[in-house]
Amino acid sequence: MRRLRMGLIGGGPGAFIGPVHRIAAELDREIELVAGVFSSDPDRSRQAGDAYRIDPRRAYPDIETMLAREATRDDPIDFVTIASPNHHHLPAARLALEAGIAVISDKPATATLDEARALAQIVRQAGRPYGLTYTYCGYPLIREARARIAAGSLGVVRKVVVEYAQGWLATAVEGKQSAWRGDPAQAGVGGAIADIGVHAFHLAEFVTGSRVTRLLADLASVVPGRVLDDDCQLLLRFDNGARGALLASQIMTGERNSLRLRVYGETGALDWSQETPNSLTWRHGDGRTEILQTGDASLGDDARRATRTPGGHPEGYLEAFANLYRDFARQLRGEPGGLLPGIEDGLRGMALIDLAVTASREDAGWIDFEV
Amino acid sequence: MRRLRMGLIGGGPGAFIGPVHRIAAELDREIELVAGVFSSDPDRSRQAGDAYRIDPRRAYPDIETMLAREATRDDPIDFVTIASPNHHHLPAARLALEAGIAVISDKPATATLDEARALAQIVRQAGRPYGLTYTYCGYPLIREARARIAAGSLGVVRKVVVEYAQGWLATAVEGKQSAWRGDPAQAGVGGAIADIGVHAFHLAEFVTGSRVTRLLADLASVVPGRVLDDDCQLLLRFDNGARGALLASQIMTGERNSLRLRVYGETGALDWSQETPNSLTWRHGDGRTEILQTGDASLGDDARRATRTPGGHPEGYLEAFANLYRDFARQLRGEPGGLLPGIEDGLRGMALIDLAVTASREDAGWIDFEV
Amino acid sequence: MRRLRMGLIGGGPGAFIGPVHRIAAELDREIELVAGVFSSDPDRSRQAGDAYRIDPRRAYPDIETMLAREATRDDPIDFVTIASPNHHHLPAARLALEAGIAVISDKPATATLDEARALAQIVRQAGRPYGLTYTYCGYPLIREARARIAAGSLGVVRKVVVEYAQGWLATAVEGKQSAWRGDPAQAGVGGAIADIGVHAFHLAEFVTGSRVTRLLADLASVVPGRVLDDDCQLLLRFDNGARGALLASQIMTGERNSLRLRVYGETGALDWSQETPNSLTWRHGDGRTEILQTGDASLGDDARRATRTPGGHPEGYLEAFANLYRDFARQLRGEPGGLLPGIEDGLRGMALIDLAVTASREDAGWIDFEV
Amino acid sequence: MRRLRMGLIGGGPGAFIGPVHRIAAELDREIELVAGVFSSDPDRSRQAGDAYRIDPRRAYPDIETMLAREATRDDPIDFVTIASPNHHHLPAARLALEAGIAVISDKPATATLDEARALAQIVRQAGRPYGLTYTYCGYPLIREARARIAAGSLGVVRKVVVEYAQGWLATAVEGKQSAWRGDPAQAGVGGAIADIGVHAFHLAEFVTGSRVTRLLADLASVVPGRVLDDDCQLLLRFDNGARGALLASQIMTGERNSLRLRVYGETGALDWSQETPNSLTWRHGDGRTEILQTGDASLGDDARRATRTPGGHPEGYLEAFANLYRDFARQLRGEPGGLLPGIEDGLRGMALIDLAVTASREDAGWIDFEV
Repeated sequence: MRRLRMGLIGGGPGAFIGPVHRIAAELDREIELVAGVFSSDPDRSRQAGDAYRIDPRRAYPDIETMLAREATRDDPIDFVTIASPNHHHLPAARLALEAGIAVISDKPATATLDEARALAQIVRQAGRPYGLTYTYCGYPLIREARARIAAGSLGVVRKVVVEYAQGWLATAVEGKQSAWRGDPAQAGVGGAIADIGVHAFHLAEFVTGSRVTRLLADLASVVPGRVLDDDCQLLLRFDNGARGALLASQIMTGERNSLRLRVYGETGALDWSQETPNSLTWRHGDGRTEILQTGDASLGDDARRATRTPGGHPEGYLEAFANLYRDFARQLRGEPGGLLPGIEDGLRGMALIDLAVTASREDAGWIDFEV
Repeated sequence: MRRLRMGLIGGGPGAFIGPVHRIAAELDREIELVAGVFSSDPDRSRQAGDAYRIDPRRAYPDIETMLAREATRDDPIDFVTIASPNHHHLPAARLALEAGIAVISDKPATATLDEARALAQIVRQAGRPYGLTYTYCGYPLIREARARIAAGSLGVVRKVVVEYAQGWLATAVEGKQSAWRGDPAQAGVGGAIADIGVHAFHLAEFVTGSRVTRLLADLASVVPGRVLDDDCQLLLRFDNGARGALLASQIMTGERNSLRLRVYGETGALDWSQETPNSLTWRHGDGRTEILQTGDASLGDDARRATRTPGGHPEGYLEAFANLYRDFARQLRGEPGGLLPGIEDGLRGMALIDLAVTASREDAGWIDFEV
Repeated sequence: MRRLRMGLIGGGPGAFIGPVHRIAAELDREIELVAGVFSSDPDRSRQAGDAYRIDPRRAYPDIETMLAREATRDDPIDFVTIASPNHHHLPAARLALEAGIAVISDKPATATLDEARALAQIVRQAGRPYGLTYTYCGYPLIREARARIAAGSLGVVRKVVVEYAQGWLATAVEGKQSAWRGDPAQAGVGGAIADIGVHAFHLAEFVTGSRVTRLLADLASVVPGRVLDDDCQLLLRFDNGARGALLASQIMTGERNSLRLRVYGETGALDWSQETPNSLTWRHGDGRTEILQTGDASLGDDARRATRTPGGHPEGYLEAFANLYRDFARQLRGEPGGLLPGIEDGLRGMALIDLAVTASREDAGWIDFEV
Repeated sequence: MRRLRMGLIGGGPGAFIGPVHRIAAELDREIELVAGVFSSDPDRSRQAGDAYRIDPRRAYPDIETMLAREATRDDPIDFVTIASPNHHHLPAARLALEAGIAVISDKPATATLDEARALAQIVRQAGRPYGLTYTYCGYPLIREARARIAAGSLGVVRKVVVEYAQGWLATAVEGKQSAWRGDPAQAGVGGAIADIGVHAFHLAEFVTGSRVTRLLADLASVVPGRVLDDDCQLLLRFDNGARGALLASQIMTGERNSLRLRVYGETGALDWSQETPNSLTWRHGDGRTEILQTGDASLGDDARRATRTPGGHPEGYLEAFANLYRDFARQLRGEPGGLLPGIEDGLRGMALIDLAVTASREDAGWIDFEV
């Protein structure tokens, strides 16, 4: 069984998420990076290709060239990874899918909700796999939480609290990472809501298996001079009647990447924090508190399949990310059972951004969540 | 310097908070329980008096009798503690204050906002000390947090997240503690918002030194059959421009008494949890994280005065409560400097309950916080 | 049922442990401080009496006077608390017991093993209660741990690791607390081993229900100029075959009062830390991890009786200490069932000090633990 | 710059550590697995080769064949990884080194101290890189700890406590992992001391920069029927005068992979636990407590170079392991600055095993640590 061949869009010098995609994709040796458009600047793209140690001829200046040249090879790429800023997502995905090449894309799906709708159409027509890397649903204990809730371990879910706290934008920082995220032309209408809010939102829906049906939003740009939101407070209703709150902020000074999800059901509750991802607190209605840990024999198939080492050997962000690529590889090989988000999740994320921004601007109170 | 003499209203058989008041009051030997109306049932009041080991003649059948008889003694009570259900607070306080006796009362101040306004009038006229036991502001590290914020250690405060999570009402429990809290005739218009929401609210204002000016509320009665709210989600604005969220719930299954306050300023942030009260996380804007601990030499006067043992000897809920009584004793002796909440804090708490219930019922969006 | 009357020896200006005894004794209102010899300096004793707000006539200049005068009263003291430095323990206890007055003493029992043997003889002859405040066995979850092990929840205990880490003597500090502890004439032959090692030792035996039968000791005076040990490493064997290690140090820089006990049995393990005393980790042999918390409904009678507030209201050091006084009061009233250590535990503690110092000096390897 | 080519010895079906080496080696794309002897059974070796997706012709039946055939290729292996049981380490390393092929080996270096001495001789003569994967020294915060201590941040180191607690051998388990570890013919003279004790020992020396000069050992086989030690308690002396304790056990029921290192100096202390590897507690002599986190801007070069993602994105065991391969690749390319342990560390580890077993058997008291 050969390794699947990956073409990376983005991930050039100074990038954070591109190299992460590369590591994640290759971690299980099911996938190999062989080509890429690492920068819109051809020289930088070539340099990055060298740094990735790929065949210099496969470091392309643009996506069209990559798709055309790869199509002529015996060993062409099997899929592209899109890891460039949001406004590139739609055009890049369109080119690939229309060329019959599968796509896995960083989140959010696109820069705007309209784009997402267009992309959804394209994906449906293309009939090729499309995956979206909401990273945090790759963690073993998140998958365990999802499985337990689906199995009824908490009873009916009543309350969901999810928060994603960062502090790196508490001041007006300069740099590649903040520049494009703060620019509506590249990032779209959402700031923190698009960068991290969608993660929190997806995680809540992924784990509970319920869908948000209404929301109330309170977004703000706290740091002077910032155009897009950097602090978000949302209240939620789910289709099963559950209530919820979502906090996402990039001005919570000193916080690193503090994503925490709590789900409270009638008979139990789960509590997970991304910065200590290998333990999951399970509070029982009868007062008992259990700590589940990655690698525990009591965990189910989804968690076990997402774990590479025995308990006590901490796995982290890169391994969670790799679990999404493992799911994607399975999809590409036509195997069932993966948990990788797809375009429907992408659409919901874009709707969240759009609705939250709209609702917040108009002080609109509760609004329906419609995609 | 003699010990001050306390008359306890409430605290009879099965009570939780009455005995806590007794322990807290006496902890520093500045106060002594000498009399009480421990139950509205005279027999039970006598029995409770015996259990407290007080002079049987000073276990009274009702407040009027206590005030009258004590007034005839050489060693009369110096103050009363009100630790009975909410609807007793106003009449009890009125009787005492009008008899010239100082009052310290459990929260919330009264059962309704109108009662609180009446009480405020009485307190102002009486000119006697009136204290309110928002327990959690008695913790040393909460006082340290307050002092640091006042001193500008965090820069301008921008974001406040406070939550108070309990799970004991996740099912329809029976019992003395839940019975009166769930009965509007005894508890007033608020359920969780009155029982624990006011604590969270007061703590946020106490520590930040800012006042809430607007709020948006989302209260619900989640458990079938319950009349009053058991789950509250509020969004807040403060007078300095800060944004905030307040969660208070008694249906967060498995949670015990999980009160957590986080305050984010421009240049730093503080994070404190009541269940591990002896450490306070201080995140600096430059990325450093410090853990302050009760008893640390670096702490200020307020924290030091509120601590009885060296660092590493955990102090808890009873000691925090005792710090409020220490403040109250100081007030009774005419000394300055205490941090005990008073009737103004009581009024604000009652306004919170009233506004939150009203705003939530009408899906009213943002409303002004006015007392 | 009247309150028992306490006479305090020690606890004058600058003292740490005397006021702790007072608070602990009075916390449950079963005991009242009425008299004392608070200092060997009569003036300071009187001043301290005023600070404690006791009758000035009952602040005595010396123990003999206290015992004589109290014996003439209608309401004499029921017992004395000895909270003065180690070398006072034997003479003070002797005077009281020979006067028919019960004694509760701070640890260690005496300054030397010979003194402890003499005291044991006196206690046996006096037939009056004698209690020893190994504080940490008063914590509810320590009592729970003991009960679970006794009930076989861990299977046969195989391994015990107990450590008591402090850092306050990492430099050559000045002050009342360090002065007497560092002076062999007042403290006896042991430094850290006598001040904190005996706590760790007692806790290990108390919780496991097993007795140390052999030990190997490695003590040192790390800080230049210090006469007594400040760092102790011991290896242990227990009478049931279990192996163990005990670390006690006052030069572990930055540590406050970090006492931790871990007990590993065939089928489970318990892990408790004094600085977060309200949770107890229970690791099961099948891989499950449970967190027990003070106030949990699943806890047994011993823990429940040692708890004053519902779960989530942290109790700490003073409450643990008060549990010992509650046990003592029960003993004084002739009631069964307390868990307060007595002279036999005192003798074992003194033997530990003596053996550890001796064994360490001579590089003696393993030696038998004999009292 | 091409990728270095790796030949893996071990890592066949059911293996734990072989796949870990593969992931770690390839994580940074500087190395590629191209060949291997994955099992001593040729069929199983071929199957494993397929699972690794390497060229089937490069899944060899034995080391001799691999070395011979690879030597005839244009693209031969650059090094071998030895990940088979201990008794294979010496013969495998000898064959490779004598063929001029660099070696990176799992720990311990060999099965016996004599073998280690022989290997040291071979390494010196071969003049090829030899690395040893004491995994835990690959963690960023361990490297930070080492750098800070070297820079004097703690003052003179006085006390080191290192422990490695596992519980998976608390009962007599069956299986590939326990079988060879419990068999002296494959594992050598040490059980837990060889499997995990050497890790703890190396970590202590690596971080402190000091060398153990004397030790006292107390090893036992606690589980009936076990030949080799499963529980180890050691006391240590270091060349700078520091004192220490080392606990390593595989019968600490319920523990997973609990490796913790604490180093106490005159003016500060560091505390790190492998199961939460992304934070490092730094206790200052003045009472301040800081939490350093992977990715913090305040960390030094060694930590930064060992980190792939921004703070708050947890990295774990595989990334730590990969850091050792990154160091090894640097060595192979003739670059300076790596921190990968070599044969001298291997010799010290084997001496530890040998001395600990010997010292423990004879109840020998303190013995000199001599390699």
